[in-house]
Amino acid sequence: MEIFTKRIAIQTSRLYDFVEITDEVQKAVSESRIKDGIVFASALHNTAALIIQEDDSTVHRDLINTLERIVPLKGKYEHDMEGNVNATAHLKSNLLGTFVTVPLKDGRLVLGTWQRLFFVELFEPRRREVVVTVVGE
Amino acid sequence: MEIFTKRIAIQTSRLYDFVEITDEVQKAVSESRIKDGIVFASALHNTAALIIQEDDSTVHRDLINTLERIVPLKGKYEHDMEGNVNATAHLKSNLLGTFVTVPLKDGRLVLGTWQRLFFVELFEPRRREVVVTVVGE
Amino acid sequence: MEIFTKRIAIQTSRLYDFVEITDEVQKAVSESRIKDGIVFASALHNTAALIIQEDDSTVHRDLINTLERIVPLKGKYEHDMEGNVNATAHLKSNLLGTFVTVPLKDGRLVLGTWQRLFFVELFEPRRREVVVTVVGE
Repeated sequence: MEIFTKRIAIQTSRLYDFVEITDEVQKAVSESRIKDGIVFASALHNTAALIIQEDDSTVHRDLINTLERIVPLKGKYEHDMEGNVNATAHLKSNLLGTFVTVPLKDGRLVLGTWQRLFFVELFEPRRREVVVTVVGE
Repeated sequence: MEIFTKRIAIQTSRLYDFVEITDEVQKAVSESRIKDGIVFASALHNTAALIIQEDDSTVHRDLINTLERIVPLKGKYEHDMEGNVNATAHLKSNLLGTFVTVPLKDGRLVLGTWQRLFFVELFEPRRREVVVTVVGE
Repeated sequence: MEIFTKRIAIQTSRLYDFVEITDEVQKAVSESRIKDGIVFASALHNTAALIIQEDDSTVHRDLINTLERIVPLKGKYEHDMEGNVNATAHLKSNLLGTFVTVPLKDGRLVLGTWQRLFFVELFEPRRREVVVTVVGE
């Protein structure tokens, strides 16, 4: 049994940027030389999310519209120091989650046919970080 | 330290089928002969969910009603190629999540008194897959 | 590779008590003497949540208000044996999640600058339990 860690830097370009990181995570797994086990990815932020979803912009836009309906930008928020985009980003982050778990088999991430990993920017263009941890043998 | 993986096949029978998989996951853990550690279960789908909840149909129906209110079937969605049931399934999947983590002690899943594991079908009757990974000693 | 488990007892004092458990989890990690790997924390309850969020009461109140809007206390729920606070607690629990994953490096939880771990009481004042599992070397 071995453990491997790698930090991935992500530069987002706008609110609701869906940055696909499947290949980056798979690359970290390949560098680890671990073949079977489990892979964890964690976003180190409260105003972003890490999700498993299809690589389909219509699904992404539906998710954005859903979030906007749940926590409307024009609502009244107490955390208003940095504006409502920031306030709602915190809430969207808890609804979507900031970490994912993916099984690992024969050196490859075990994902469904349409499953991909996305870092979702919920605030503004920022330099972001994801920590990938691989545990296995 | 050892690692063990098993695929569980699930045949769902309808939209909103809550398939309890606690026993199936426990069976995989017993087959692994790993006693202490951690257990992961991941659904390989974007239109289903894997949750921890009580085995109580009233709670399940309340959850269904809540999801229907958040992403109403009669809404307008961009991902409309396969209809609104499919479009909303993707969104519900991200709100509930598709993987769970459960501690393992003395060969048994460590769950609260009322906690059970459910695969939740969010689309149509389908053959589904869950990957169980056990890490421990 | 080693594995370490510890149970943390939490006494909540009211509905929507946000109990910060970052230090308690870090203490468990230090007791484990494991330096690099991954840390899991799981709440053994269906009417509470475990989240990563900022230690900021305005964010917490916005999250509470968001949950109240999604599953209003005055709504009609089928799981009404213990009242609507209990019924909605089950639903909020599935929306927020009951477990978190945190990378471990040099004996310290790897969290973003503003990230803290919170046990969120979604029902009434109760004695609660969180299981911390550390895997690594």
